[in-house]
Amino acid sequence: MAADESLMKRLERYGRSDFYPFHMPGHKRNMPAEAGRLLQTAAGADITEIDGFDDLHCPEGVLLSAERRAAEVFGAEETFFLVNGSTAGILTAVCAAVRRGGRILMARNCHRSVYHAVCLRELAPVFLYPEILEGGVADAVAPEQVEEALVRHPDAQAVVITSPTYDGVVSDIQTIAEIVHRAGAVLIVDSAHGAHFGFAPCQPESPVRLGADLVVQSLHKTLPSLTQTALLHRNTDRVSSEALRRFERMYQTSSPSYLLMGSMDACVRLLEEQGEELFSDFESRLDRLYDRLSGLKTLCILSKMLPKQGCMKALDRGKLLISAQNEKITGNLLYKELLNRYHLQMEMVCDTYVTAILTPWDTKDGFRRLAEALEEIDRELLRQQEAPSEKLRPQVAEAGNGPPSEVPLKKAPEKAGGACAPSARRWPAVSAAMPLFEAEEAPKTAGKLSEAAGKISGTYVNLYPPGIPLIIPGEIITEEIIKLIERYVQLGLNVQGVEKPDGGGFSARELTIESITGRRS
Amino acid sequence: MAADESLMKRLERYGRSDFYPFHMPGHKRNMPAEAGRLLQTAAGADITEIDGFDDLHCPEGVLLSAERRAAEVFGAEETFFLVNGSTAGILTAVCAAVRRGGRILMARNCHRSVYHAVCLRELAPVFLYPEILEGGVADAVAPEQVEEALVRHPDAQAVVITSPTYDGVVSDIQTIAEIVHRAGAVLIVDSAHGAHFGFAPCQPESPVRLGADLVVQSLHKTLPSLTQTALLHRNTDRVSSEALRRFERMYQTSSPSYLLMGSMDACVRLLEEQGEELFSDFESRLDRLYDRLSGLKTLCILSKMLPKQGCMKALDRGKLLISAQNEKITGNLLYKELLNRYHLQMEMVCDTYVTAILTPWDTKDGFRRLAEALEEIDRELLRQQEAPSEKLRPQVAEAGNGPPSEVPLKKAPEKAGGACAPSARRWPAVSAAMPLFEAEEAPKTAGKLSEAAGKISGTYVNLYPPGIPLIIPGEIITEEIIKLIERYVQLGLNVQGVEKPDGGGFSARELTIESITGRRS
Repeated sequence: MAADESLMKRLERYGRSDFYPFHMPGHKRNMPAEAGRLLQTAAGADITEIDGFDDLHCPEGVLLSAERRAAEVFGAEETFFLVNGSTAGILTAVCAAVRRGGRILMARNCHRSVYHAVCLRELAPVFLYPEILEGGVADAVAPEQVEEALVRHPDAQAVVITSPTYDGVVSDIQTIAEIVHRAGAVLIVDSAHGAHFGFAPCQPESPVRLGADLVVQSLHKTLPSLTQTALLHRNTDRVSSEALRRFERMYQTSSPSYLLMGSMDACVRLLEEQGEELFSDFESRLDRLYDRLSGLKTLCILSKMLPKQGCMKALDRGKLLISAQNEKITGNLLYKELLNRYHLQMEMVCDTYVTAILTPWDTKDGFRRLAEALEEIDRELLRQQEAPSEKLRPQVAEAGNGPPSEVPLKKAPEKAGGACAPSARRWPAVSAAMPLFEAEEAPKTAGKLSEAAGKISGTYVNLYPPGIPLIIPGEIITEEIIKLIERYVQLGLNVQGVEKPDGGGFSARELTIESITGRRS
Repeated sequence: MAADESLMKRLERYGRSDFYPFHMPGHKRNMPAEAGRLLQTAAGADITEIDGFDDLHCPEGVLLSAERRAAEVFGAEETFFLVNGSTAGILTAVCAAVRRGGRILMARNCHRSVYHAVCLRELAPVFLYPEILEGGVADAVAPEQVEEALVRHPDAQAVVITSPTYDGVVSDIQTIAEIVHRAGAVLIVDSAHGAHFGFAPCQPESPVRLGADLVVQSLHKTLPSLTQTALLHRNTDRVSSEALRRFERMYQTSSPSYLLMGSMDACVRLLEEQGEELFSDFESRLDRLYDRLSGLKTLCILSKMLPKQGCMKALDRGKLLISAQNEKITGNLLYKELLNRYHLQMEMVCDTYVTAILTPWDTKDGFRRLAEALEEIDRELLRQQEAPSEKLRPQVAEAGNGPPSEVPLKKAPEKAGGACAPSARRWPAVSAAMPLFEAEEAPKTAGKLSEAAGKISGTYVNLYPPGIPLIIPGEIITEEIIKLIERYVQLGLNVQGVEKPDGGGFSARELTIESITGRRS
């Protein structure tokens, strides 16, 4: 591609010109001082669809060029800029690929936007359950699982899996794509966490180049781009560009931000010019960091152990999962130590581990601070002869210690699911008495979980980790499910979707759950 | 409300602290230099849902406070922050207010997001047609219209109107709300262009305070807030907060931008502290500007004439509609003059007028430049003895002069509609053979418009101005509609949705339109 001016530079240059805005936005590149310097600066590039700046929903000029550049950089036939996150990409992809009321195969640990797409499109979902590994981390989706499910459901129009997952677990996209295509279906990969794949040889390859038909990637999660920016790639003829355009226009604002789009274009150009170098260097930095952390005695790097346990194709080392052997310290306490004592803000915390996201834009100092903090905590844990306060504490006690926000559960709500220690955590068999979309809007009644056998769930009950629903609206609440939920709560695991009475010291028998009013299976 | 720290200041302060980010976004507040200074600055406030910064989709802390402040400032019971524009608010409001498959009354000149909501929710729409005034501007929706439509359709669950419109036309919300409520329905007002109403006594009142149940407002269009920021107000018990929350979570990214949210909070606080003063002063500035412009001889301020013509409650003077008497100059040419010669970028252009958006954040210099430019153009038009080149030229000729982007039609696609001179423009009677949502996805065939009588439209055909569809997918293409479209094209009006052959000098009989394959009424 010719070395033409980036969108961001064009916007900045325009903002400095003598062209006066009698168009929106209302700030007129003259943000009041009360808004502060940052917003005043940002406003300089915040325009609307004026002459020479194209239209995202009908791109023909600079935005089409930007999208084409992205398609080329990421290896897709066509790429759509998204300003409403991967969420918009998922809704668009699913709606374009599956007819209303159609059948869809989806991993149970998919992002909630996939469940939302199922509702909006009134789909009949069939779930693929990955295995649960150490720490409660969900494994990859196995190709055999997909194949077997497609044999049982030949009417499935699309298969949706998340790869890499929030934990960095990568599935065998190439094999899965072949299986899906043989069955005449479309493979949609939620790669929100994998926009950085495929730039250096040592990295996992991008799903776009492995046969996936539609791939959604968040630029903001792992690359230097502003929050809310994402891409939807089409690398297939199985879904038309026109269908994707139709839904993209529905799910995204008619006034997309040029600040966000400028950010996307800047990010894509950086990858185009320096992608391989950036990620090759980064892999070396990761080598050195992981090497250093392998010296930890009590804390352990879960990310190093997991690939040996499951069927995953790879694990993204940009996701550093840190846990403790023999439950010497809970994830929650480790998170708090790192935050309050060392001022290191982790990405995610659950009872078994914490997650740090690492990218090429981490500073050497940041890596150093993290390594030193972990080593110091590790030494202290070793020194402790007895430290009952650091052992795994039941969630009940912690819930009594303050409002939920003090037990940080970063990102847990992002996925409609939960996690559990491999020995303890498993999925119950579920069956739907009612389609999800119907159950979502049916009237609900709260009642005792212990008396709910036979009722139909009106809610998601999620266990974190791995962020997978034990039950979703419309599924039948069985005795097995009731007992499982009660046991997880008693173990102190993080279960969301059942209500606990206020105050400490309650019995699991007092849990309440919302069920569909007046319906029993 | 206590004078607590604004979200933006909190973000900026946090960005300068020694807390190190091992969370997304991937830039780690360390945007590469290649991205430029603006993005580097913006990144400083670009975080994710970390400790102390709450969660937009389940707000309990700073974001709940921010939303509550907005509710108080705007007079609502509850307010939701939107980061996917008014589009997200409209989709959310309609889905929460109307059951799947339900009946909805909507103004024909509603924003396309209302049409999208009708598709997504499989609704049965009944249309209210405002009158067309001078220049092709759509009038307000008359209360009697609403009342009569509700009598004919007592099963209507909601009524959706746009007030103010893109042109600044304000409907009588108070009376309409009473009528709607007597019929047991919900009033949804798309007030995307009216977030600035109700702060000073001389302004029109906000729909929120006039009885509307759900009101959607774009902060970015007329106030100092970044593009994509909007508010959804609930001021009713007819629609539950829970239903709104459910759909808001579907239609908005699970990773909302703190930059955008910080911008919203800053804007709300500014209004809280200075709203009345800002808009009182602004009204005085408008008085002076309009007074000066009343001296124009050839150009005329359409905005001054319209209120006398229709049933509108008011016209927003922040929308300056400039046209020419006796078609001395087309809107397109006026737009180009202002842009190319005076470097004044207008908001919208169509064949009959141009629109300048005016806000309190316009500088004195900006107002001066505009007034001087208009006066100079006005003088030149007066001087011209004969200037055939400046007379209204058929759209055909202009289309032959270059690609569509050279005939700027800013914002025209935003509404699914079109405009026309009052003497020439009118709506044909339409009837639907097929629901919109079904027609949107049915296979389509392109064919000659002249042979399309009896077929079912597969497309929107819009006339600009006023941005109203002559026909939408699913409606029957009648001989009347065919003749109307052909005539508008021959008059050189801007008709979108029918394809014209490339090159100049074509006959209207050569127009093609997409119809539903294999279906005739």
